Amino acid sequence: MISNRTFHRINRIVSLAFCALLFIAVKVHAQSDSLPSWNDGPAKQAILDFVKVTTDSGSPKFVPPEARIAAFDQDGTTWVEQPLYTQVMFAFYQVGVLAKKDPKIAAAEPFKTVLSGDRAAIAKLKMPDLLKILAATHTGMTVEVFQASVKEWIATAKDPRWKRPYTELVYQPMLEVMKYLRDNGYKTYIVTGGGQDFVRVYSEQVYGIPPEQVVGTAADTKFSYDKNGKATLTKVPKLILDDDKAGKPSGIHLMIGRRPVAAFGNSAGDQQMLEYTQAGDGARLMMLVHHDDAVREYAYGPKSKIGTFPDTLMAEARKNGWTVISMKNDWKVIYPFERK
Amino acid sequence: MISNRTFHRINRIVSLAFCALLFIAVKVHAQSDSLPSWNDGPAKQAILDFVKVTTDSGSPKFVPPEARIAAFDQDGTTWVEQPLYTQVMFAFYQVGVLAKKDPKIAAAEPFKTVLSGDRAAIAKLKMPDLLKILAATHTGMTVEVFQASVKEWIATAKDPRWKRPYTELVYQPMLEVMKYLRDNGYKTYIVTGGGQDFVRVYSEQVYGIPPEQVVGTAADTKFSYDKNGKATLTKVPKLILDDDKAGKPSGIHLMIGRRPVAAFGNSAGDQQMLEYTQAGDGARLMMLVHHDDAVREYAYGPKSKIGTFPDTLMAEARKNGWTVISMKNDWKVIYPFERK
Repeated sequence: MISNRTFHRINRIVSLAFCALLFIAVKVHAQSDSLPSWNDGPAKQAILDFVKVTTDSGSPKFVPPEARIAAFDQDGTTWVEQPLYTQVMFAFYQVGVLAKKDPKIAAAEPFKTVLSGDRAAIAKLKMPDLLKILAATHTGMTVEVFQASVKEWIATAKDPRWKRPYTELVYQPMLEVMKYLRDNGYKTYIVTGGGQDFVRVYSEQVYGIPPEQVVGTAADTKFSYDKNGKATLTKVPKLILDDDKAGKPSGIHLMIGRRPVAAFGNSAGDQQMLEYTQAGDGARLMMLVHHDDAVREYAYGPKSKIGTFPDTLMAEARKNGWTVISMKNDWKVIYPFERK
Repeated sequence: MISNRTFHRINRIVSLAFCALLFIAVKVHAQSDSLPSWNDGPAKQAILDFVKVTTDSGSPKFVPPEARIAAFDQDGTTWVEQPLYTQVMFAFYQVGVLAKKDPKIAAAEPFKTVLSGDRAAIAKLKMPDLLKILAATHTGMTVEVFQASVKEWIATAKDPRWKRPYTELVYQPMLEVMKYLRDNGYKTYIVTGGGQDFVRVYSEQVYGIPPEQVVGTAADTKFSYDKNGKATLTKVPKLILDDDKAGKPSGIHLMIGRRPVAAFGNSAGDQQMLEYTQAGDGARLMMLVHHDDAVREYAYGPKSKIGTFPDTLMAEARKNGWTVISMKNDWKVIYPFERK
């Protein structure tokens, strides 16, 4: 037996050693590269600097944990949006499903054009046509039936170029930014012009973002009782949140109620969200993904119908000190499956 | 010096002792009463049973942590709503503030009636009058200016009966339920017919619920630039979410995107929220606060204009197995300041 005094001394040594090890482990963890798919450069540095000054309690730019809100656009910012938005591919597929059930749909425009598969004709569809397609494929069913249809499609549909599920065509460097921010106490949100109910189906699995942290374009729902008397919600074609352009700050206010301190986008649709983010006090991070990699992904900008990045936006980014991310130069890999 | 072997042995003993202590501490904590302001009875037992079966991973009614959503109505469920909703008191006060700045408001109806202080006349105001008052006091300013006005008022205004700030007139037993649920992995939400922007100002401080977990009636906001060119949001009189009755399930779907597993209300305005909650699969908890304590709070029910609890709702509660909380019998204290 050892004496009581020795026991206490050893106890203290063990505790101290344990604490020291813990401290070292935390240090090592903090110093390891949290953004391994980013090349060294101003974009990566901007993220690292921002996290450092906003999470160091001694920093004048410290942001208290509850105010650490980061907003990410989706299409073109966290996953591929070319040649067509993934949700539009889903809607076109659903037209086929509906047509099988109802021959009248198959015979009527604009559904007939979609079913023809004629790309040139499909590309010429106008906004009222697209709204008809969205209404037919996104409303008139319970929220659970809609969710199930998205879940089924997203698990099996494949992108025509990469022959992979759309959920694999997410940008690995952006996944790393999201995780890095969360590891530093940030609450990450998707703020998309796309449909809120669509993105919520896969957001947790793909981005680690729960449904309640997805802000997107939303139609209303109607409360009623099903044939068994159970309370149910049906999706109806009445827009309540048009979460694009000036609608993004309003969507953020409605759904989050706080101004983000960091915002990530890639197109004219994100301009107001970045302006709204910047207009707050203290440290701010505004970033725009620039699609300039024709080999590994796509190169597009001012002239693209999808994900338009006008010269005026580029000029505003320069003027306001927003960081433009070059996919070609800043990203070591684009997709998770490219990692070695 | 002691031998290396002794050191390791002691190290192991210390670690084991530490673990044992930790285990005991956790056990003791779990067995201590998490609902000390509740009398033993069916209401308290319903809460304890629900938490037990939904958080025990071996239970067939286990609910995974991400699905643990609990919704609480506010007025009459978590704080006093008589003789008038707190937010209406705020609106009346703001009419005075506006009238001081603009004599035209002081001279026009319905503001003139509000300023008269004539209770009988105020009680006769009709819905269009109240909407005018709400529009004048809740819109036309930036969200920050509105938030500041609520913050200032709520810090100083006092309830006429208790002569205390409204934020002290919260129900202690309900604060305990919220905390108990959160301690067991539940995400707690306020789902109120009141204004989302109003409740969000104090929800964290009063309920421990952050602004982004407050769902309430919401007007739209308009994006613009202030005189310095800074991006700003102005509250506009266009309703986008009427979060009452059948609007509550829709508000929940819009803002949370998941069906709650527990819901707490007190009036006809909460009926559909409880029905929607109950219609999901697995364990469910639906509770209604019944105001039956004329001495310590108020006693009201089917005939009250505010917080109507119709006989049909009571019948539905009995039929559906919802738990009715008797404030008189189930609660040891009503308010935090009554605790000994």
